[in-house]
Amino acid sequence: MDQHKMDQEFMKEAIQEALKGQGQTLTNPLVGAVLVRDGKIISRGYHEKFGSHHAEVNCLRDIDAQGATLYVTLEPCSHYGKTPPCVDLVIKEKVKRVVVGELDSNPQVRGRGLQKLKEAGIQVTCGLLEEECHAMNRLFHFTIQHQRPYVILKMAQSLDGKIATKTGDSQWITGEEARRDGHRLRGTCDAILVGRGTALQDNPQLTCRTGGKNPLRVVLDRTLKTPRTHQLFQGEKTIFYVGPDQETRTLTPTAQAISIGQDQDGLSLEECLKDLYKNQQVSSLLVEGGGQVLSSFIKQGLVDQWVVYQAPLFIGGDGKSTIASLGVEDLSQALESRIYKVDRLGQDLRIQGGKDCLLEL
Amino acid sequence: MDQHKMDQEFMKEAIQEALKGQGQTLTNPLVGAVLVRDGKIISRGYHEKFGSHHAEVNCLRDIDAQGATLYVTLEPCSHYGKTPPCVDLVIKEKVKRVVVGELDSNPQVRGRGLQKLKEAGIQVTCGLLEEECHAMNRLFHFTIQHQRPYVILKMAQSLDGKIATKTGDSQWITGEEARRDGHRLRGTCDAILVGRGTALQDNPQLTCRTGGKNPLRVVLDRTLKTPRTHQLFQGEKTIFYVGPDQETRTLTPTAQAISIGQDQDGLSLEECLKDLYKNQQVSSLLVEGGGQVLSSFIKQGLVDQWVVYQAPLFIGGDGKSTIASLGVEDLSQALESRIYKVDRLGQDLRIQGGKDCLLEL
Repeated sequence: MDQHKMDQEFMKEAIQEALKGQGQTLTNPLVGAVLVRDGKIISRGYHEKFGSHHAEVNCLRDIDAQGATLYVTLEPCSHYGKTPPCVDLVIKEKVKRVVVGELDSNPQVRGRGLQKLKEAGIQVTCGLLEEECHAMNRLFHFTIQHQRPYVILKMAQSLDGKIATKTGDSQWITGEEARRDGHRLRGTCDAILVGRGTALQDNPQLTCRTGGKNPLRVVLDRTLKTPRTHQLFQGEKTIFYVGPDQETRTLTPTAQAISIGQDQDGLSLEECLKDLYKNQQVSSLLVEGGGQVLSSFIKQGLVDQWVVYQAPLFIGGDGKSTIASLGVEDLSQALESRIYKVDRLGQDLRIQGGKDCLLEL
Repeated sequence: MDQHKMDQEFMKEAIQEALKGQGQTLTNPLVGAVLVRDGKIISRGYHEKFGSHHAEVNCLRDIDAQGATLYVTLEPCSHYGKTPPCVDLVIKEKVKRVVVGELDSNPQVRGRGLQKLKEAGIQVTCGLLEEECHAMNRLFHFTIQHQRPYVILKMAQSLDGKIATKTGDSQWITGEEARRDGHRLRGTCDAILVGRGTALQDNPQLTCRTGGKNPLRVVLDRTLKTPRTHQLFQGEKTIFYVGPDQETRTLTPTAQAISIGQDQDGLSLEECLKDLYKNQQVSSLLVEGGGQVLSSFIKQGLVDQWVVYQAPLFIGGDGKSTIASLGVEDLSQALESRIYKVDRLGQDLRIQGGKDCLLEL
């Protein structure tokens, strides 16, 4: 086997290692590594979960790496983060050659890890199975580039875009299968967000009732009006984002108020998203409603992907619109996006679309 | 071959005859007949077009039918319509046996034709390939049962049910492929209906620009406000339904005003549909808009099938709703129906549904 083919085989092994961390590493990436000497893998390692050791550290632990080749799916880090730079470790362990899948997507460190390795006299090959290495970390790349979670809007409506009749009748527009799928969807995201209106009126649990993991619950509640007796104060953790005139404080062992700024639309969505990403390790956020919250996310261009459940019924103009407070003036301003998947759920449709559609929901 | 198998083979031939009239016979049914003696077909006939001879007449003309067997897809008529009763002809020609596909669906004549044949001593077999015979005349059966055309609603809208932004920008919400498909759709229906608002503002041609046949154009225009300079006064025939205070009269060689009654929703849709069926030979009607007309048809339960073109954009609550004047109070009143087909047309979706969905659009 020639060198390139051998490199590919070992990089595939490193990818398999990386995938073992699936669902555990965000907002960090999946990374895997294998150490090879004389055509044989002598050690393996992966990034197991957010905040723990990097893949290189796990791979190089308790092994003589001198003169060996290290295959790693992502460029080793060169900066001090939660752990010391991996390149220093690789140099210290006298690895002879490093084969890298893709460069770090953080523009401030991109290429600098490889540069340091080269300066230390280590042979470096980069871009092997780059596409495969990139694909498994699409959400990570998105969040590191935008410094906020990937945002998914969920709506359930009639075929003419209504969530309730004019008298408020809304249970149920969509059928059982669609509603169950909505629960499943919650399990695929790190956090789920609703506005104060929904929190007050619906007293929701916002849990994943189909057996998946429960997401972090997030409520935009400027003046903290949600009563302590509501279900959001029971069970798992809930964050209430409150206005700048409110204090950041612990409300109950599972509920926290975090003060953020305001803009003309209400609480600053940008600040909310930034906090969720930086401080709550949220990479994917499901926005469920109500209409005003959905509208604000659309208006501010903060929607990356959407899921619309559509029931085959017509409610008409007086009914409550899903995104009532959005008010586009000309069509060029309308959130335009690509439909990428349509499924039938019982009598209803599930239409998925967005700009990139990174998540297979 | 046994008698039953032979009967089936000849009935299949009769069905093939019937299908020759496709697209020409409505609001009459497709009917085909073959005459058989000694196991051989000695004559064929079909109902060629609306108003012309029935299949039996064409089949029995210029042939000695004495002692032969007549296979006919639909029960021979026993009443005087535009032509004398076919059963009288069959009896007069001394046919020995009659094999019928299905009974007449008009409850007033159903079975009476066969009764008369039996009374004249003719052997009668009924219900042979009944399903196949019925299937080719589904639209006919619908119209004779309801005494009105089959109504199809067409809408083009954003994903949130809007046909325009709040400032009226509406060109174009859907893409080129969807718009072209809308034209194709026109060619599949006998007539196309719009309200006065659409006629005045859009000055539409309402023609099928994809090469199909042009439907009859129908405008609900209570006080006949559409200007004579509008395109609806050029080209093919247009009917303007006007209020009870207006006269039924010929406007131009191709345009006619027909006076009908009113109800609280405006012009009586029931009277309009009845006239289209009885006097204009319209079996299928495409209702294109505007919102008020669409709403009235939905409200009055006069929608049999619908086609919604949906573009992947969100316009929001201030935008113009497709069916603004429908105003359902509780969900049980909402026009509920089955989605039976979803297609992608460029960036858009075409969603088809309805109660029965008799037409494959």
